[in-house]
Amino acid sequence: MIIVGEKINTSRKKIAEAVENRDADFIVQAAKDQAEAGASFIDVNAGTFVERETECLCWLVETVQAHIDLPLCLDSPDPAALSEAIKLHKGEPMINSISLERDRYDALLPVITSNPCHVVALCMTQTAMPTSVEDRVEAATELINKLIDKGVPIEKIYVDPLVQPVSVDVRMGPAILGAISKIMQGFPGVNTICGLSNVSFGLPHRSLINRNFLALAVANGLSAAIMDPTDKKLMSTIISVEMLLGRDEYCEKYIDAYQNGIFADQ
Amino acid sequence: MIIVGEKINTSRKKIAEAVENRDADFIVQAAKDQAEAGASFIDVNAGTFVERETECLCWLVETVQAHIDLPLCLDSPDPAALSEAIKLHKGEPMINSISLERDRYDALLPVITSNPCHVVALCMTQTAMPTSVEDRVEAATELINKLIDKGVPIEKIYVDPLVQPVSVDVRMGPAILGAISKIMQGFPGVNTICGLSNVSFGLPHRSLINRNFLALAVANGLSAAIMDPTDKKLMSTIISVEMLLGRDEYCEKYIDAYQNGIFADQ
Repeated sequence: MIIVGEKINTSRKKIAEAVENRDADFIVQAAKDQAEAGASFIDVNAGTFVERETECLCWLVETVQAHIDLPLCLDSPDPAALSEAIKLHKGEPMINSISLERDRYDALLPVITSNPCHVVALCMTQTAMPTSVEDRVEAATELINKLIDKGVPIEKIYVDPLVQPVSVDVRMGPAILGAISKIMQGFPGVNTICGLSNVSFGLPHRSLINRNFLALAVANGLSAAIMDPTDKKLMSTIISVEMLLGRDEYCEKYIDAYQNGIFADQ
Repeated sequence: MIIVGEKINTSRKKIAEAVENRDADFIVQAAKDQAEAGASFIDVNAGTFVERETECLCWLVETVQAHIDLPLCLDSPDPAALSEAIKLHKGEPMINSISLERDRYDALLPVITSNPCHVVALCMTQTAMPTSVEDRVEAATELINKLIDKGVPIEKIYVDPLVQPVSVDVRMGPAILGAISKIMQGFPGVNTICGLSNVSFGLPHRSLINRNFLALAVANGLSAAIMDPTDKKLMSTIISVEMLLGRDEYCEKYIDAYQNGIFADQ
């Protein structure tokens, strides 16, 4: 499981304050905590700064990478911000995200093809959010084929099926899970990725829903998640589900996690 | 989800004492608690009494049904004990269990065919425990076809894939889950049922494993479980997973469970 640590996002008040005050220590600690908890990428998002997003995103890239030897996930809908941030990034970042929306696609494609990188590909059509499995698979197919044509290796493409709340439409659960399964089967080597928390929007006890959704998504083939790796309940879910799916020979990872206190919250 | 409440089993010390002392109040309370928590059947098992099993099982049937208006799951490997208990049972019990083992099959078949009942059918071959998906599907196919031939309606057959510990062989997880999926797809209308706790035998934090196993099993089609319905973490798993699978229109059952305090332990 590839984990993208989601905590450095200025939609969180303390992170916004740290970015505003250029509090490098606070940001580096948030990155270190996630790296130690098992993140493969550290997400950096300065979206709330709007006019100053590029400047803040660049500061985050330099600040985190000065202390942490991990690639980052550069998280912005703005091709200009991504284009500047990628110049400063050491190693191969993940770019979050491209989609079939014409303006975004055209502006971002040169950034992606001129820098070795991983890329999150959203299952949006040119005009709308997806609803069914078919909507998602259709958008994914078009986007994967376009990116491969432009030379992006399939294993660096992370398809995001776009998680929508089951409280709005209970068919969203099977639509997302079904799309993950079909995309993983239809495109061997590709990755699927998603955030978790949207699924539980509007309902009580969201963490219960989020971790059960994660269990089902992993069982359907999800290979990456944008999540908080310091959330022991979520990590416990991944570790036990992977064991139950036969992916943890001799239950070694499970036993290691137990010895490291990951299951203490259970 | 059909829940068979598992708590009235003399392998539990307090239940054994209550049966020994004919403490009807204690047994009835254990049954009531499970009925209120959502059990559709109350399992009764007096297996530890060996020579006195028939007598104890019969006492349990009469004691529970004197106070609780639910069918029971008569749980014994002994056809003689089952044969006596079924005579006392009001309504259609569940019989746990038949298998292809020759002696058991021959002795139990007349009991099953002469009384309207639900029946648990174990995926054992005539000589061995199953290991692979194929072993299980093969045994299930033979047993389902035989029972249907004898007039047992398919929807009253509950195939138990036999849950074995992942600590012994990590391939057991996918073998059990794969068998549930294939049996449910191959025999529309049939039920699948299993106990949960064997899967985690020999590992720490068993309840974590058990409830994630339950989540995956339900997603693969499991329609019944032998479990403790007063375990709020297990019930929370079922309720949230069924919602995520699109089986809870308008999230009504989820909201009801929330309002009834089922998620309090989360």
